[in-house]
Amino acid sequence: MSRLAILSAGGDCPGINAVIRAVAKTADQRGWEVVGFRNGYRGAVENDFLMLGPEETAGLLPRGGTVLGTDNRYDPSDFPVEEDGRVVRRDLSQQVADNLQRLDVQGLIAIGGDGTMAVTRKLIEKVGLKAICVPKTIDNDLPSTDQTFGFDTAVRTATDALDKLHTTAESHHRVMVLELMGRYAGWIALYTGLSGGADVILIPEIRWDPDVVARKILERRARGRLFSVVVVAEGTLTPEGERVVQRRVPDSHEQIRLGGIGQLVGELIEEKTGIETRVTILGHIQRGGSPSPYDRMLATRLGVAAGELALEGRYGNLVALRQGTIQAVPLDQVETGIRTVRPDGPEVEAARAIGICFGDR
Amino acid sequence: MSRLAILSAGGDCPGINAVIRAVAKTADQRGWEVVGFRNGYRGAVENDFLMLGPEETAGLLPRGGTVLGTDNRYDPSDFPVEEDGRVVRRDLSQQVADNLQRLDVQGLIAIGGDGTMAVTRKLIEKVGLKAICVPKTIDNDLPSTDQTFGFDTAVRTATDALDKLHTTAESHHRVMVLELMGRYAGWIALYTGLSGGADVILIPEIRWDPDVVARKILERRARGRLFSVVVVAEGTLTPEGERVVQRRVPDSHEQIRLGGIGQLVGELIEEKTGIETRVTILGHIQRGGSPSPYDRMLATRLGVAAGELALEGRYGNLVALRQGTIQAVPLDQVETGIRTVRPDGPEVEAARAIGICFGDR
Amino acid sequence: MSRLAILSAGGDCPGINAVIRAVAKTADQRGWEVVGFRNGYRGAVENDFLMLGPEETAGLLPRGGTVLGTDNRYDPSDFPVEEDGRVVRRDLSQQVADNLQRLDVQGLIAIGGDGTMAVTRKLIEKVGLKAICVPKTIDNDLPSTDQTFGFDTAVRTATDALDKLHTTAESHHRVMVLELMGRYAGWIALYTGLSGGADVILIPEIRWDPDVVARKILERRARGRLFSVVVVAEGTLTPEGERVVQRRVPDSHEQIRLGGIGQLVGELIEEKTGIETRVTILGHIQRGGSPSPYDRMLATRLGVAAGELALEGRYGNLVALRQGTIQAVPLDQVETGIRTVRPDGPEVEAARAIGICFGDR
Amino acid sequence: MSRLAILSAGGDCPGINAVIRAVAKTADQRGWEVVGFRNGYRGAVENDFLMLGPEETAGLLPRGGTVLGTDNRYDPSDFPVEEDGRVVRRDLSQQVADNLQRLDVQGLIAIGGDGTMAVTRKLIEKVGLKAICVPKTIDNDLPSTDQTFGFDTAVRTATDALDKLHTTAESHHRVMVLELMGRYAGWIALYTGLSGGADVILIPEIRWDPDVVARKILERRARGRLFSVVVVAEGTLTPEGERVVQRRVPDSHEQIRLGGIGQLVGELIEEKTGIETRVTILGHIQRGGSPSPYDRMLATRLGVAAGELALEGRYGNLVALRQGTIQAVPLDQVETGIRTVRPDGPEVEAARAIGICFGDR
Repeated sequence: MSRLAILSAGGDCPGINAVIRAVAKTADQRGWEVVGFRNGYRGAVENDFLMLGPEETAGLLPRGGTVLGTDNRYDPSDFPVEEDGRVVRRDLSQQVADNLQRLDVQGLIAIGGDGTMAVTRKLIEKVGLKAICVPKTIDNDLPSTDQTFGFDTAVRTATDALDKLHTTAESHHRVMVLELMGRYAGWIALYTGLSGGADVILIPEIRWDPDVVARKILERRARGRLFSVVVVAEGTLTPEGERVVQRRVPDSHEQIRLGGIGQLVGELIEEKTGIETRVTILGHIQRGGSPSPYDRMLATRLGVAAGELALEGRYGNLVALRQGTIQAVPLDQVETGIRTVRPDGPEVEAARAIGICFGDR
Repeated sequence: MSRLAILSAGGDCPGINAVIRAVAKTADQRGWEVVGFRNGYRGAVENDFLMLGPEETAGLLPRGGTVLGTDNRYDPSDFPVEEDGRVVRRDLSQQVADNLQRLDVQGLIAIGGDGTMAVTRKLIEKVGLKAICVPKTIDNDLPSTDQTFGFDTAVRTATDALDKLHTTAESHHRVMVLELMGRYAGWIALYTGLSGGADVILIPEIRWDPDVVARKILERRARGRLFSVVVVAEGTLTPEGERVVQRRVPDSHEQIRLGGIGQLVGELIEEKTGIETRVTILGHIQRGGSPSPYDRMLATRLGVAAGELALEGRYGNLVALRQGTIQAVPLDQVETGIRTVRPDGPEVEAARAIGICFGDR
Repeated sequence: MSRLAILSAGGDCPGINAVIRAVAKTADQRGWEVVGFRNGYRGAVENDFLMLGPEETAGLLPRGGTVLGTDNRYDPSDFPVEEDGRVVRRDLSQQVADNLQRLDVQGLIAIGGDGTMAVTRKLIEKVGLKAICVPKTIDNDLPSTDQTFGFDTAVRTATDALDKLHTTAESHHRVMVLELMGRYAGWIALYTGLSGGADVILIPEIRWDPDVVARKILERRARGRLFSVVVVAEGTLTPEGERVVQRRVPDSHEQIRLGGIGQLVGELIEEKTGIETRVTILGHIQRGGSPSPYDRMLATRLGVAAGELALEGRYGNLVALRQGTIQAVPLDQVETGIRTVRPDGPEVEAARAIGICFGDR
Repeated sequence: MSRLAILSAGGDCPGINAVIRAVAKTADQRGWEVVGFRNGYRGAVENDFLMLGPEETAGLLPRGGTVLGTDNRYDPSDFPVEEDGRVVRRDLSQQVADNLQRLDVQGLIAIGGDGTMAVTRKLIEKVGLKAICVPKTIDNDLPSTDQTFGFDTAVRTATDALDKLHTTAESHHRVMVLELMGRYAGWIALYTGLSGGADVILIPEIRWDPDVVARKILERRARGRLFSVVVVAEGTLTPEGERVVQRRVPDSHEQIRLGGIGQLVGELIEEKTGIETRVTILGHIQRGGSPSPYDRMLATRLGVAAGELALEGRYGNLVALRQGTIQAVPLDQVETGIRTVRPDGPEVEAARAIGICFGDR
């Protein structure tokens, strides 16, 4: 019986299990078996795997996380091994190829982000790995695909949180600041702000002035809207254009850390408006939970497409959503880097039209 | 001060309030006022309205339904009025035009489906109404736009129901049948079936054979999967190709009605497989509830676009989502009718690839 | 190593898995193993089981249904077996005892309702079974315990549905009728009606007059509340005091069935008020889904108590929630039958105080 | 027409609107009107109010927060007023009494926590206020009532967050720490930990040793459970028995603050186990959102009871839930202070039985 392998690497996000299930079901329909490596490329190096038959993939669709585990540090070509009591780094790329051959695996499907794609390309080059990539990031900031699975679920979780903060803000006449994920791109903050009725949205792509934000909040107050809700992407720069780094104060035994950008935004607003302000950092909750129907659908379609490409022997591709259809894009033509929010893009323009403030005017 | 008017007609769906709010906010930003007619065109005839200022639209975004009320029967050109104790039908189109003029309204935004658009066109022709249409249907079956708001929320509600039925099906080794909305197109059933892990999906667009469905369920059983989950669109035809009409048995005083297609599917499955089968009809719950972030976003963008077109005096258009952007489509070029599921479309093909049965093979 | 056994029987409901997990964890902490019989007492007769170690119970807490499967028809003392091509009934009680002994099991924990408790008592009497019972029913109508797990989750699901129907009712100025579970007691309907803001609640315990219901709805209309929401328990009697039985019309080839009580209530309201009325039957969805925190907590506490009783050899008890504490009640002192809603109980009185109509005044 | 007044004070929590609605509906049924003061006792001093008729209370039941606004700083007997450009404090208790009399109000219902009850008592003493108190706190730590509304909703929100963190913890083999509300009592943390399957629960009532926590986590790892989930109440003391105070570092221009106890717990775990650990502080989200059915029910019953007491002229009472029934407790017999978790109480014992670690053994 012929076999495919699959692994998931990088940060987890809702929908990975749906991809795994779709690959396994597509293969099963054609009489192929699927091998799942544990913990990203680490499992491929260490030959740590499980079989993904109908039994193992039953009930996977609605489950968050990844049943294979994930890891975002292991690169087979620079793999840490213990030798003589010390950890040294070795190129174990060939070991991956050998493991695949020993398991009788025809090709590998790798679910991951930019880093995983880079590692996969290296393996293609070095040991002729036959691979298909499935793009994955909660942040929706990959230039290769119009939308990544997991993003819709993250926005749902964040919007739900914003809805909850609204009732408190309104009852207490406060400013509530919600810091969301998005280290280099403001997609989650932008979509959540629009969906959750934020008054101010701050994102890495737009420089902001605390006086502009304060003016917006005070204008609302003057019109009888005694509360305001502010959404901030974690990668938003300070008004001076610097990145806020969270770190401990070195010469202190107390548990001290720099507050993130959300904390800074809250303090500046309170200082400039005199209105009581509270900050919430949503954090890892955005990565968790059962994927939304949209993400289950997208992940399933990507998994089917990846499985079919592999079964047809069309390796060396990434599967991507482009203008509503799933397409195969040759890995060497895939654009890398970050897809950022355009300050004059349609979502920002729509937000400005209904009076949402980005701090820049 | 200049004014716009807005109304919502046809069946309600999540996101109408988000459109209303976006129009009102867009207008408010430019210094215009917005008048909301109650209960579709009925309010425009009877001059029944409320002002939609910042106070009235506060908190509207997450709320289901429509704060303006809706109505799916009133056509101003064929409007029922009581005269001498009898209801007669009159053409009151001019009365709509007069009411708009008296209120100093420059133009009207009408949120509705195919029927509402047809009525709007008649008013444009008869009395020169200046109007913008915003497409709306839970069923996602309008050919003029790639997706309608409300659909994502309906699929979420239906998928949540399917997830719940799964646990019961699995615990009792039963077949669970879920009948969903979709009188002429199977979009809700198709997306829910894929998102909720259905084993069988029956839709109006694909003729089905109960023996094929039974075989699928028995094959699952033979492989140790002792339960199955079946999703049926309400407009799915009988195996003989007929539409199931729900009606009372005429010569009976008992409360008798024909079961819908879900009931028939359940009975045929039980008969042909011998496996205990239960039927659930989700019904109106699919129309209700707070819109999903996706629908809030789409509805907001449509509302902004409609508001901006009106403010610029570009009447006679429908706003539509096409390939990810919001576009203005001249009302006389808008395709009408039903956008059905293509049996060889990408979603159906993906479903078949993972072994979902449509009853036709 | 010492061993306990566990099984679940009767209709499924959210929280069974939480009981199973709590028993397994309690036993594991004390160094015992747990054997799970599949499909209620059927697995105990046929020796069909799985081990419930830490691996198998990981992740069970939030999952609906029962990982052991359930069955509500098998009584070991009257068990169907095939002999000479015919199904005959045999007393296989001794086989259950033998299986337990062969597996080295010290005692059995049976999760189930009244029927399961009756079967368990028979086995105690006939073959000296050492057993603990954990009460279970979605309907919350057992006299032996103040509340059953699964009920809170069912009310949450039903209230969510009622919230959704509210927005549609309000937008369309309709009467929406929601039929909920509760064949002999109206607990789910009563709690959902109060939690979801129903205007009328009809339950088996209170005789109702359609004219009283119609008057309530028309009074609301007269006060400007153009819609109403009605909740009906499935076991509510007709105005004539009869039970509505769903059956096919015998001499018909069409798929005909009697509508349930919800259908009848809807038709009577429409007839007597002239207001458009829609009926939704929520059905099996009420049994499904992840248990609410309340139910997870209650189920966990019951599972711990059952496990500890078994580990201490205190068999012959039922574990019950009484006035906030978990108590052991000797099985021969357990009250059976149905705990119905008292028409003058505190919940009904609270409902009447805020103007909810029960159709009787 | 006779009148009641109502106000809400202290921190907001889900269910306040349900109390307000129940009072208004109960009064309306008896032909009384209800006046709502805005922002706690501040509105009673400043005569800032709205009428709470059927129109105003429609749709309130499922809404979080309080439609009256709240305030947790104003005591009429020590009220800040501006005189000659300076803020001075005056005793305006008589002004409250005068406002009530001028509005023709017979008595006042005050929804709030310990602080609100203390203020209310002062007003009873000083100016003979006729008042009923409704206990309210998200923390469930009032000794006067068995459970407070809002608590069940907070636990639901927190459990949902914990469920989400579980999938990430499992996929990444990490320790996830979730800090929850509970400054003086660990109820939210305890119930969430039990409902969400935490491995470790740290609360103010139980002193903990980081080595015990680390040992628990390492034991799990040794058994193949590569991740752990830890819940911490915000008021949990440091291992040295001190309270963690969040403050800025005084001589720094950087945005520095002390991490809360969650941060400290995470750092100690990472230090002692070497396992990657992530901390999430859920914060204000716990106060928000639509109340759960349980809380809507409890709040409704309390509101009805308060309304009926007032209508019968039985002032000077608090309404409380005791052993499943709503009771009137004379305000001068109400126990104040904090109801803490008993370290040997049934919930903690159940948690220990399934192996949950409290850090103390």
